[in-house]
Amino acid sequence: MNRNNVESLVTGLLARDTLSLARVISWAENRDPRIGEILRRVYPDTGRAYRVGVTGPPGGGKSTLIARLALLLKAHGERVAVVAVDPSSPFSGGALLGDRFRMTELSEDPEIFIRSMATRGSLGGLAAATEEVLDLLDAAGFTWILVETVGVGQIELDIANATDTVAVVLVPESGDAIQAMKAGLMEIGDLFVVNKADRDGAERLCVELDAMLDLRPGRDDWRPRVLKAAAVRGEGTEDLAEAMETHRRHLTETGILEERRRGTLKHRLLAEARQALLRRVEREDGEGLETLLDRVARREITPHDAARELVDLLGRGPSGAPAPR
Amino acid sequence: MNRNNVESLVTGLLARDTLSLARVISWAENRDPRIGEILRRVYPDTGRAYRVGVTGPPGGGKSTLIARLALLLKAHGERVAVVAVDPSSPFSGGALLGDRFRMTELSEDPEIFIRSMATRGSLGGLAAATEEVLDLLDAAGFTWILVETVGVGQIELDIANATDTVAVVLVPESGDAIQAMKAGLMEIGDLFVVNKADRDGAERLCVELDAMLDLRPGRDDWRPRVLKAAAVRGEGTEDLAEAMETHRRHLTETGILEERRRGTLKHRLLAEARQALLRRVEREDGEGLETLLDRVARREITPHDAARELVDLLGRGPSGAPAPR
Repeated sequence: MNRNNVESLVTGLLARDTLSLARVISWAENRDPRIGEILRRVYPDTGRAYRVGVTGPPGGGKSTLIARLALLLKAHGERVAVVAVDPSSPFSGGALLGDRFRMTELSEDPEIFIRSMATRGSLGGLAAATEEVLDLLDAAGFTWILVETVGVGQIELDIANATDTVAVVLVPESGDAIQAMKAGLMEIGDLFVVNKADRDGAERLCVELDAMLDLRPGRDDWRPRVLKAAAVRGEGTEDLAEAMETHRRHLTETGILEERRRGTLKHRLLAEARQALLRRVEREDGEGLETLLDRVARREITPHDAARELVDLLGRGPSGAPAPR
Repeated sequence: MNRNNVESLVTGLLARDTLSLARVISWAENRDPRIGEILRRVYPDTGRAYRVGVTGPPGGGKSTLIARLALLLKAHGERVAVVAVDPSSPFSGGALLGDRFRMTELSEDPEIFIRSMATRGSLGGLAAATEEVLDLLDAAGFTWILVETVGVGQIELDIANATDTVAVVLVPESGDAIQAMKAGLMEIGDLFVVNKADRDGAERLCVELDAMLDLRPGRDDWRPRVLKAAAVRGEGTEDLAEAMETHRRHLTETGILEERRRGTLKHRLLAEARQALLRRVEREDGEGLETLLDRVARREITPHDAARELVDLLGRGPSGAPAPR
């Protein structure tokens, strides 16, 4: 099979052929123009997978929990894909997969697809690439897609927004509920998992989280739940899976799922349009940009006014031509 | 004095009048159009302050360290401003200033200006507003501006990029050096402070950090330093201040400071231009956007192609008119 041929890659993808999947995902990750045609072909087959985001501070045992969850879902007859997104190294351009070894158990399971997404180039590109990868896996017929991210930056928020249920994983060591709140984790979680629940402080963290969730303005008419787990010992995985199902049923029955996905799509469209516009600015106004920078550096003009001039330059430039990907 | 009058606000700002500063900073924070004129008036007076970013995971004692540092710098005759940026609550729209109380000692000192920046609306706006606030404080004659952020998301990176020296504050509890690396902290720091250095694991963390920094590709011909501190007891502050001075001297003498600031400016210009463009998309293409969303929801078109259509719509629209702020 020619793995660079769009036709055979689409066939391979729809059949969940691992090598075809790896290839098209790399295209998405590298922003290869050929991904546009692949997506065009498979997009009608998307919208069936349930997408779960799993986030939280480093060291909380997310990978282990996801591995347990994936195996449990598989045992229930689901087709599971795991995507680990690591935006941590914007400068070196490489992701650190230090704790991926915890997924060893999974990577030896041919029925569970695992993929790590690294930063290649811009962070904005990473969120867009991840959303495309979720579409590709969805079209490939995976019924559950588990997406792991670390912490809460803009990308992690974008990715959390692109999932249907968000589980936040905390451990007693990651601090108290106030710190989780400060880190922005309280507001994105539909489910909160206190992992390593056998350790000191776990019970207190649960109580604090619950108290704080009582104060949190509701989203989607859903009161987030706090669960305990000890993922290395396999405890709590079933409760989590059940809570995910309950949340899914809530979103589906109320029609909120559809509404939420439309909101996600709008956000994604605007983000992609912004990226395309940015490329246009950088391409068409290289010279204009340097001249403006000189003027700002000489303090003849403020950065704010210079930005407006840059936009005006663009508006006056040759427009109407489609921006290349 | 009429505090809404641009003239008197500029005069107040240049005289470091606290109330005038508070007002213009609020304008920057709220993206009030009047800030454009203020910046135009004071921008020629910027470029003198030295800007230090202090970041790291929550709970590391950053606020205490900054308070100590600010008092020390003041004792050396510097005029110090502290800006705490908290992008943690994108949904609720309010920043949580839970640990600001640790700066009580500072807030009672009339000679040190302190300001917290909260998320109002978009996160993109927060980074832009913060950069304008740094310009305002710079023009007001503060000689050192200390900027506190939490963790490393895109905003924190943008803000770190807008400072001259970045100090990353870690504690043994925040995990090992691998986790700091995963969180993206290793690549942005010029100085690493292991705070609460009397606790278990501090020595090991220092050794790990040092080992990892040996592997890190150099930036600005500078080998980052690892320092110990126990900020609550006031230990390590002088070493940190000295290391900051050494780094500053290095940047200044090599000409890297100027180069770095130009890079920052370019990044900022592009970010501001992108925001202005985004507003134009949202304004001009409200209807076009909804139609496109409908088509994507029906899976007639991929999000990627829809984004390109959106950009084309903009290119064909009435252009050339300056985008409003």
